[in-house]
Amino acid sequence: MTNRQFMLARIPNGPLTPDCFQLRSCDIPKPGEGEVLLKARYISLDAANRAWMQGATYRDAIEEGTVMAGGALAEVVESRHPDFKPGDLASGDCGWQEYAVKPGMALTKQPNMEPLPHLLSVYGITGLTAYFGLLEVGQPKPGETVVVSAAAGAVGNIVGQIAKIVGCRVVGIAGSDEKCRWLTDELGFDAAVNYKAGPVYKSLKAACPDGIDVYFDNVGGDIFEAVLFQMNLMGRIACCGAVSAYDGTPPAHGPRGVPGMFVVKRLTVRGFIVSDFFAKRDDALAQLQTWVTEGRLKVFEDIVDGFERLPEALIGLLHGENRGKRMVKIG
Amino acid sequence: MTNRQFMLARIPNGPLTPDCFQLRSCDIPKPGEGEVLLKARYISLDAANRAWMQGATYRDAIEEGTVMAGGALAEVVESRHPDFKPGDLASGDCGWQEYAVKPGMALTKQPNMEPLPHLLSVYGITGLTAYFGLLEVGQPKPGETVVVSAAAGAVGNIVGQIAKIVGCRVVGIAGSDEKCRWLTDELGFDAAVNYKAGPVYKSLKAACPDGIDVYFDNVGGDIFEAVLFQMNLMGRIACCGAVSAYDGTPPAHGPRGVPGMFVVKRLTVRGFIVSDFFAKRDDALAQLQTWVTEGRLKVFEDIVDGFERLPEALIGLLHGENRGKRMVKIG
Repeated sequence: MTNRQFMLARIPNGPLTPDCFQLRSCDIPKPGEGEVLLKARYISLDAANRAWMQGATYRDAIEEGTVMAGGALAEVVESRHPDFKPGDLASGDCGWQEYAVKPGMALTKQPNMEPLPHLLSVYGITGLTAYFGLLEVGQPKPGETVVVSAAAGAVGNIVGQIAKIVGCRVVGIAGSDEKCRWLTDELGFDAAVNYKAGPVYKSLKAACPDGIDVYFDNVGGDIFEAVLFQMNLMGRIACCGAVSAYDGTPPAHGPRGVPGMFVVKRLTVRGFIVSDFFAKRDDALAQLQTWVTEGRLKVFEDIVDGFERLPEALIGLLHGENRGKRMVKIG
Repeated sequence: MTNRQFMLARIPNGPLTPDCFQLRSCDIPKPGEGEVLLKARYISLDAANRAWMQGATYRDAIEEGTVMAGGALAEVVESRHPDFKPGDLASGDCGWQEYAVKPGMALTKQPNMEPLPHLLSVYGITGLTAYFGLLEVGQPKPGETVVVSAAAGAVGNIVGQIAKIVGCRVVGIAGSDEKCRWLTDELGFDAAVNYKAGPVYKSLKAACPDGIDVYFDNVGGDIFEAVLFQMNLMGRIACCGAVSAYDGTPPAHGPRGVPGMFVVKRLTVRGFIVSDFFAKRDDALAQLQTWVTEGRLKVFEDIVDGFERLPEALIGLLHGENRGKRMVKIG
């Protein structure tokens, strides 16, 4: 029995390509004291994976010649940690490998539920990021206009749906007419803007006649700038990521209007990561579960089958292929 | 008896010059019902005056051919408003004129105190901006590093002094070695950086070995960017103004690292204007008064004498001439 791993063979200097990864086989490792051996069931793909290659972020950079990092839902095979026993499910950064050894304290125990992929989508980092980012950082009030970018993506589509549930007018920004139709027709967004179809400032202006109160930003760059100039007084911007800056050379400059428009509009602009809110995790999960059960929050997953497809799945995600949460099913 | 006024004769397209203003004489106006006739005693000069010429901000733009706008401390000459009587002192946007008629509800009654200029400096918009911006927006904790730009200016020097009072390490950014020495030697700043003397990123790094927790931003632009990359996790940026963008052509781009660094460092970046906090005004004034009386907060005023010097006084302020609060004494 061997383990398969994708190593980050070289740091991309521009768009990510398959040759940045190298597949290798090795022995299955043994857990030490306090550690757990896990077998991956689903590996999560996230735009942040690409950012991690560029340098230290809220975590250390991924170094060349090490196993590619990434979150996973995995099954405990062997445990030397009192909280875990074989057969348990756990999530954590197990990386792109079939088997991983992790300290028990770096793992989150997960219930054995159906369908399992929900533990990586709506009940995982993705759903919690949308929930906390919108509600805690964005602080939307009923009747306000909420704009979300990368709206057809894993986090974005949940942000928009939650914003609808709490009574907001919701406008999504996405990269194709087909995605935009999906947002309005299937997810109930009030409007959607295809940022590739023309000047985003203008189409956004048409879609947001009363201005923008809350912006959930997944992309940064020109879209951030276009939104910024249409924010209402006392508006809030939840900064979740800057995917426009991840998969290429870093932008030469930041958006215009910073910090001038922050002052003029008295905006609160706040960067966050999901773990900042983990003290409220249980309440959030209970709320998400209620909405899903009631059918008010639809769950969209884009499951790619086969360990060896991890590189293409991430590259495709960075090109905007997915709708909803993309992950790879292992074994 | 006539009134003298400075009109904004043309909107500057680049650095402000004296020919943008035109001095004229006219009759002293009569107050209507609910209005008050005032005679200016001191007219406040603020970098924001320049921003107002460029377009709508948190107030309407100043239009060509109208009286130049500006805050003043003035004495009531005649009143048709029940809250004011001749001899009372009041502050408000009376503009650059010796006599003004204002609705009573647009004025703030002021106590007759000595020295009067304190009502425009530490006990006026200036002091309250520093107080609320630092304490409410910046939320500094004892031991944290606070950086303030335009540190020798009216607001900046008070921000730094309050940050010292609440137990922070304080670093000021200013535009000359002389100002920097003044900040450290007379005001008790822990360090000061002359942004004109070399790369500000490097000198700031040397002055802030533990990174930056709170940044009180008066300038925007390159200094904002240099600070941004040195912010600590969960840091806060209070955006008070962007003077680097006021007196010239608007910058082509914003600072790099926006919004990426906001996410990575989980920063809260908030624009504000002083009136957002006026509900707490009395408490703030009482606290400022205590600090001034105890000698812990020094008040610096730069008083230019003579109504006709208003244009040069503002132009000089935009060039960084002043230390502390600049105003013009009238009559």
